[in-house]
Amino acid sequence: MGLIDSTMNNVRPPDGRAMSAARTRLDSLLKPPGSLGRLEDIAVKLAGIHGSVGGSVRKKTILVMCGDNGVTEEKVSSFPSEISTLVAEMMLRGMSGVSVLARHAGAELVVVDLGLYGDVTRGGIVDRKIRRGTSNMTKGPAMARDEAVRAIEIGIEETNGAIDAGADILGTGEIGIGNTTTSSAVLYALTGWNIDEIVGRGAGLTDDGLRHKKDVIRRALELNRPDPADSVDVLAKVGGFDIAGLAGCYLAAAARRRPIVIDGFIAGAAAVAAVKMHPGARDFMFTSHASAEPGVAVISRILGLEPILALDMRLGEGTGAALVFQVIEGAVKIINEMGTFKDIGM
Amino acid sequence: MGLIDSTMNNVRPPDGRAMSAARTRLDSLLKPPGSLGRLEDIAVKLAGIHGSVGGSVRKKTILVMCGDNGVTEEKVSSFPSEISTLVAEMMLRGMSGVSVLARHAGAELVVVDLGLYGDVTRGGIVDRKIRRGTSNMTKGPAMARDEAVRAIEIGIEETNGAIDAGADILGTGEIGIGNTTTSSAVLYALTGWNIDEIVGRGAGLTDDGLRHKKDVIRRALELNRPDPADSVDVLAKVGGFDIAGLAGCYLAAAARRRPIVIDGFIAGAAAVAAVKMHPGARDFMFTSHASAEPGVAVISRILGLEPILALDMRLGEGTGAALVFQVIEGAVKIINEMGTFKDIGM
Repeated sequence: MGLIDSTMNNVRPPDGRAMSAARTRLDSLLKPPGSLGRLEDIAVKLAGIHGSVGGSVRKKTILVMCGDNGVTEEKVSSFPSEISTLVAEMMLRGMSGVSVLARHAGAELVVVDLGLYGDVTRGGIVDRKIRRGTSNMTKGPAMARDEAVRAIEIGIEETNGAIDAGADILGTGEIGIGNTTTSSAVLYALTGWNIDEIVGRGAGLTDDGLRHKKDVIRRALELNRPDPADSVDVLAKVGGFDIAGLAGCYLAAAARRRPIVIDGFIAGAAAVAAVKMHPGARDFMFTSHASAEPGVAVISRILGLEPILALDMRLGEGTGAALVFQVIEGAVKIINEMGTFKDIGM
Repeated sequence: MGLIDSTMNNVRPPDGRAMSAARTRLDSLLKPPGSLGRLEDIAVKLAGIHGSVGGSVRKKTILVMCGDNGVTEEKVSSFPSEISTLVAEMMLRGMSGVSVLARHAGAELVVVDLGLYGDVTRGGIVDRKIRRGTSNMTKGPAMARDEAVRAIEIGIEETNGAIDAGADILGTGEIGIGNTTTSSAVLYALTGWNIDEIVGRGAGLTDDGLRHKKDVIRRALELNRPDPADSVDVLAKVGGFDIAGLAGCYLAAAARRRPIVIDGFIAGAAAVAAVKMHPGARDFMFTSHASAEPGVAVISRILGLEPILALDMRLGEGTGAALVFQVIEGAVKIINEMGTFKDIGM
């Protein structure tokens, strides 16, 4: 049995008894019942994940999966592919968006190169390069099936590594010019959702650019005909190394019972792929924020998850995950530290 | 000239030049322009407040204004008034919702008794008691005009005190059983907005309770006929010590150019009263979260402010403010610490 199957075999449902106990505890706290709204729901969900009330989410790790995409040959992005490697460099130098916000949140960053065109010279990069960029999906499959399997396995391995190093909660991010195109293709292939509701302007496309992007996605789907019931096939034919790696992160988090925060559209498309592989993975996921990228709303609906922040961010990288870690940790502290009506003799 | 007028005279508009400089700096950062969404807007607004790019919001203080309300005689709340003093006690003991979340955010709490029925014995309470509870507004004005003036002045003085002690950013909270009724009355009197869109279930009213609450508010308005153009008159006749104190907080924050976070419905009604007194106060306000209390959406529309969190909280106390402090500080760190395209030679 391969790593993917053995990981999926370890996914168990949330602990209903712990969730009930959390709800009872929340109702005993010195506040009108339910008045902390979704902060209470977060605490209940965490209890289900931990199998007990009030487990810790102190040590925070953001996993950033990086890979370049051959489909950028079709000019689907307003930025050149060289940017991906440069952003990964900047991330490790502490100067990208997520590095600033991770530092702010006290979170560690794990930056994994699964398939960047360039080589990141900065120390700290986790070199798991499968290939320098995927193939152009309008001319054939983006990767071979075994490459997609390898990318998912790397996501699982790096997530297991982060958990072994003590991570209580995980966030997900990605780097890869062209990856809103590949994510849109993955989401479209998996769900058949209306393409106009899925495909957005990414890093800043014009109207013409947007039409072209949809056309590229349609052509890739027609040529490769991925099987909607087989996430690995979809990820291989029209996905990317980053998306496949992220799908592995979600599966590993579920198997190891750690909460994991989806950040934005690309990570969300990967989450949908993971949930198609194992529906139980959903119970360990949180979404960070409503994004300006239209497909994010579709993903939230498919996964049945509601965003925590209302900031219209669309940078990705894991920036939203870094911001919501504090909110999720706040929910745990509420259930652990607030006084009860009993404490005041009522 | 009294303290209120001298405070309002010191309110200056945001610094447009600093805001432009912030926008330019944000566009130079290593990310697609605008891709950090409203996090960028927050950084720009802060630049306007500080008069320069990237000022600090490190020291955080939440001002909690406490007062009881005579209108609770009309049974508008599902909790007895004694709870107010007990909650203030628990807050100072570190066991209320906001004390947990303020500790989590590294924020200081300043808990001010402007008119609780009981006496808070716990050390740390700021005793500025005007009277033990307001009068029942269905039988006459809740307070005399000079009491409302005094409450606003106390809000100003405590805010100035917090700023003198180093506060870079302020949050607002309140304690006072019955204060969703008084806030609804204030908002209705000031704006004439449809009462059904303003009045909610507070700490958990039934349908009958909700109808009764609206009836109480209508009766109070008919009897007292507050002048919608005069916030002090409205606060005196149908407000509360907590709401009037909070209005003072917003005015002082604007005069001293400190960002101030509104938390929930009661604080929001006070913010509307403050903005009616000086429209420039609005430029220093942030709203924390969309609330389950329906009037919060009305307040956001009136103030033109968009919430940062999507958590449906309605506890008040300043809980939402504590959670968004981290997000606002994240926005400052982004503009201060992120790398630029220039840094990578582009």
